[in-house]
Amino acid sequence: MAHMKHPKPTQSRNKPSSKRSSGPDRVWLYGRHAVAAALANSDRRLRRVLATRNAADWLNGQAIEASILEKLEDAKPDAIDNSLPPGAVHQGLAAEFFDLPRARLKDACAPAIAEQPVLVLDQITDPQNIGAIFRTAAAFNAKAIIVQDRRTPPLSGALAKAAAGGIEAVPCVKVVNIARALEALNDLGYETVGLAGEASANLSVLDPKKPIAFVLGAEGAGLRKLVAETCTTLARIPIAPAMESLNVATAAAISLYERARIQDKE
Amino acid sequence: MAHMKHPKPTQSRNKPSSKRSSGPDRVWLYGRHAVAAALANSDRRLRRVLATRNAADWLNGQAIEASILEKLEDAKPDAIDNSLPPGAVHQGLAAEFFDLPRARLKDACAPAIAEQPVLVLDQITDPQNIGAIFRTAAAFNAKAIIVQDRRTPPLSGALAKAAAGGIEAVPCVKVVNIARALEALNDLGYETVGLAGEASANLSVLDPKKPIAFVLGAEGAGLRKLVAETCTTLARIPIAPAMESLNVATAAAISLYERARIQDKE
Repeated sequence: MAHMKHPKPTQSRNKPSSKRSSGPDRVWLYGRHAVAAALANSDRRLRRVLATRNAADWLNGQAIEASILEKLEDAKPDAIDNSLPPGAVHQGLAAEFFDLPRARLKDACAPAIAEQPVLVLDQITDPQNIGAIFRTAAAFNAKAIIVQDRRTPPLSGALAKAAAGGIEAVPCVKVVNIARALEALNDLGYETVGLAGEASANLSVLDPKKPIAFVLGAEGAGLRKLVAETCTTLARIPIAPAMESLNVATAAAISLYERARIQDKE
Repeated sequence: MAHMKHPKPTQSRNKPSSKRSSGPDRVWLYGRHAVAAALANSDRRLRRVLATRNAADWLNGQAIEASILEKLEDAKPDAIDNSLPPGAVHQGLAAEFFDLPRARLKDACAPAIAEQPVLVLDQITDPQNIGAIFRTAAAFNAKAIIVQDRRTPPLSGALAKAAAGGIEAVPCVKVVNIARALEALNDLGYETVGLAGEASANLSVLDPKKPIAFVLGAEGAGLRKLVAETCTTLARIPIAPAMESLNVATAAAISLYERARIQDKE
């Protein structure tokens, strides 16, 4: 257990930007894959990391820098519980980070290329679904995920756990207005494709050579009117009449798979 | 609120098979779509259904038989809370049923046709994932889902809610031994395709004309050795090296979408 140390002030406490009143937001991540991926992300600034003996052993087998592993604080499971919301399934590993630097739409989405779709989430608020979408987006090499700042839960906790490292791999752009973001994507060369059960066009007819941004609405409500009207086109995933809709993370996964499949075929 | 009634003994209490000691298992379902779909399923035997005023109004707009709607018991949200496990998000609607009759493999899976894949879940225990798989299976008209009896949570509660009615549409076959079930599927004419990240063949090369049973293992552990060896073939969904794997419900969804897509193309 050579990598373990007792709690002491972390590196970041010495930096002026970490002052409690004015510093960037802090987030707790937990779960083995979520924390390991965050520790391996050089854009992250670590505050502290708590690990049980078993979790530390596991972490030592991952590709994490020794300087990070030196910061591991030995902790019992219930001490980790106390740092997290009730019921958090942390698998013996939790870490507090300063929040990731904000990504800007143009920086994250340009240049537009057909091989890397963007996802735009309109009013999707369920942390499990958003986390699952990040995981799949990373698996299919999506360019970025755009969300509405005000409506989206923080990229931490249960969301980050469901993402299994996906939030480290895919930039998240927080915008004030989704319809305006769609126009900005059009300007960058993306076709903005709203997924809607009532659309007449099938997902698979999309031009394989065009960069695509898929726009996904909340289950039940679907895309908001203005958002749907701002999309270049609407498309549907054909399903059996027995079911009203797909889960939104499932719809995102199928859209990304379909694009990857069609690119591979070209 | 003409359909509301005050609690009274339900119809099923008069049936001899409902005796507490020897009757079939009972399950609580909750959530609007899960309960509405179960109430519309004529294979279900209802014990009781609790609804808030709002939920009852909503239910009256669904395609449910009047004789069922007459059984609605008016309930406050906290009275519904008390019938369910802590934290159940019931949306004002919960119902207790006798468990569905057990489906047998041959009855549920024959005849084998290419348009209706079977899913086999090997050691998948997460209720959210199993529920999500039922939802997607119903959306893509899957023939049946086969699970290991001993390891699978009951088809109720959070699982049924995530399934959003999918457990009413797709038969669930509970078996003792998964490897033996695969042999039975082979005998019925199915190719049994294990999904495995390490497989060399891509999902999209599967013969569109062959009936397929997809075999999905638990995340992390994957398919058990004997199960993988019993499969006719292994296939993978191509993903970016950045991610180790897809969520199991996501992998199931992509497999079902790919089959539906290839059938439509034929």
